Amino acid sequence: MNNLGRITLTSNIESDYRKLLSIIKDVVVLSTAEGIIHWDMEVYMPPKAVEQRSQQLALLSRFHHKLGTNPEIGKLLNSIQADAGYQTLDEVEKRNLYLINKSYQEQTALPEELVADLAMQEVITVNAWKKARAQKNFNIYKVDLQKLLNLSKQAAQILMKIKQTKTPYEALLDNFEPKMPAEMITKTFNQLLGGLKPLIAKIEDCQTKPPTQFLKATVPVENQRKITQLITQTLGYDTSSSTAGGRVDETEHPFTTGYYDDVRITTHYYPDNFTSSIFSVLHESGHALYEQNLKSQWQYQPVGSTCSFGIHESQSRFYENIIGRSREFWIGFLPKIKQATQSLGNLQLDPFIQAANRVERSKIRIEAD
Amino acid sequence: MNNLGRITLTSNIESDYRKLLSIIKDVVVLSTAEGIIHWDMEVYMPPKAVEQRSQQLALLSRFHHKLGTNPEIGKLLNSIQADAGYQTLDEVEKRNLYLINKSYQEQTALPEELVADLAMQEVITVNAWKKARAQKNFNIYKVDLQKLLNLSKQAAQILMKIKQTKTPYEALLDNFEPKMPAEMITKTFNQLLGGLKPLIAKIEDCQTKPPTQFLKATVPVENQRKITQLITQTLGYDTSSSTAGGRVDETEHPFTTGYYDDVRITTHYYPDNFTSSIFSVLHESGHALYEQNLKSQWQYQPVGSTCSFGIHESQSRFYENIIGRSREFWIGFLPKIKQATQSLGNLQLDPFIQAANRVERSKIRIEAD
Repeated sequence: MNNLGRITLTSNIESDYRKLLSIIKDVVVLSTAEGIIHWDMEVYMPPKAVEQRSQQLALLSRFHHKLGTNPEIGKLLNSIQADAGYQTLDEVEKRNLYLINKSYQEQTALPEELVADLAMQEVITVNAWKKARAQKNFNIYKVDLQKLLNLSKQAAQILMKIKQTKTPYEALLDNFEPKMPAEMITKTFNQLLGGLKPLIAKIEDCQTKPPTQFLKATVPVENQRKITQLITQTLGYDTSSSTAGGRVDETEHPFTTGYYDDVRITTHYYPDNFTSSIFSVLHESGHALYEQNLKSQWQYQPVGSTCSFGIHESQSRFYENIIGRSREFWIGFLPKIKQATQSLGNLQLDPFIQAANRVERSKIRIEAD
Repeated sequence: MNNLGRITLTSNIESDYRKLLSIIKDVVVLSTAEGIIHWDMEVYMPPKAVEQRSQQLALLSRFHHKLGTNPEIGKLLNSIQADAGYQTLDEVEKRNLYLINKSYQEQTALPEELVADLAMQEVITVNAWKKARAQKNFNIYKVDLQKLLNLSKQAAQILMKIKQTKTPYEALLDNFEPKMPAEMITKTFNQLLGGLKPLIAKIEDCQTKPPTQFLKATVPVENQRKITQLITQTLGYDTSSSTAGGRVDETEHPFTTGYYDDVRITTHYYPDNFTSSIFSVLHESGHALYEQNLKSQWQYQPVGSTCSFGIHESQSRFYENIIGRSREFWIGFLPKIKQATQSLGNLQLDPFIQAANRVERSKIRIEAD
């Protein structure tokens, strides 16, 4: 806000900008509340609560829509745009305005009913999916998936016009990776495929495969929790002190959620596969650190949020693969987990790293399935 | 709604009543969402999240206030009251209208700013209290307690007029125990004191005090969790099946929160005092069962909620003391916990019950301190 002092006295841009940010702050705060309720749904909600939860998230999505489509936002945006002082705004201020306008246009185009129906159906579908997965029966989830798909298609049709994308798919893709054309994704992945396919074949054919059997050593969950604690502590993601802004829980599928001083990760412990949680915690901690290292003065502003899922994933993969599968990391870290668990005494540095790198490759293939 | 069919065709009472209940449903759903966020604050929130949490609950309290003071509520209430069909409403419908009107009058009298400030200060004060308690230092919490007290006094002054109570204190007391005058509470407790004092003295003087030492037997937390599971299962409060509507977590001070299909309790395990959690879980399960046994067709209506904290506490005490300290309960239950824990083999029925009843008495005195 340094530049705002320089504008003329007849300009309202400073007060308009502040008013705008204070409206947007409510939207952001509401998102974080919705985030907690989503987190609870994934981590601790009793199974019977699905209907209640769908009502809650539908109602909050209505509030969200009302706040985000407040006509005052449009007026303030117009007034700021037309103000003589507009050119004195710095790039952060301009980026905030760009993001506020983008979101305002998109939300205004979507009817409140559709937004609420989507929020409600999402809860129902996600919980049906959990049941279906547990029982390995797609039919449990088929009808609700179709309903969610239909609602998403309706939203995509509307957003396509606002975002001027070629396809409805790209209108939704833009929510995750702004301005990314489907074509470029296809091109990028085809390039990767071209390089990776022969590389994988070469590795498969290699006669001296590193042994991985020792990764199946039984490590009790209690000891794996100690490893998790060591990882988050080592990376600087505080999940345990009296001023911690993070925490670790256990879910079927690991994820990260949260904002600034409250960012939470989950992991899954397999007693006969201790590296699964290790790399998962490295990965999710990367996500968490990205969120927590956003500039503190940007809290509650649009610039103080994920700029794209690709960037987010780059940070998690950096911690998981570049740091977490490096010899440099394990030189210091292996003795620590040996000491904490008292049960991995035989683990040797280089065979461990080779095996861990080999396992990652198979994991990529599973995720792609 | 049976009676509504009988009214004349010119009456709007049926549609007005439905419209009213649908507005109120949103208020109730929002309360349950606030409940989850409160629960999270007490149970799992990372300590650094206090400021964010205070923003969230202040914002939701604003929404709550807006929904609850929607002028449409007043209009519909008036129109129903004036309708020729009013007398045909049954007692449940009339009770709903009474409760809606009560809440509407009270909320309308309170300014939104005060409601939001209270919600925000409550979060800050509760979290300061946690710190103060951990460090046994009242000063950490003094300033924030004073702030909360001042805000509560402001609210009490306003509510006193609306509720026509003699004192501001009674205006707040009414939130917990509707229409209860402070005088009657004093009278009731003085009566109890008169009877209990000589009784306690008599017990203290008794030469044959039941031994309680064996209640200090070490029972690992893991085994105490098994006992908890047995208690909730035995009482019919489902916290573990694939259709459970309850759950148990661990906090410093046990409590119950929730609504219908999502009611949660907490307990605290002391390895050298296993009965503490047993009676606490019996108590909280009583609260939970009261909530979950509200008529299912009343969900999202004012009648489908606690009618008073006294009634609520009567249910928890019933499960804790009348059932939970009875010989009849322990005849069947003692063998179960012996089997589950494998470490209480020496516990004998009558000495255990005598000791458990004795311990309860000291607990009452501690709570009164």
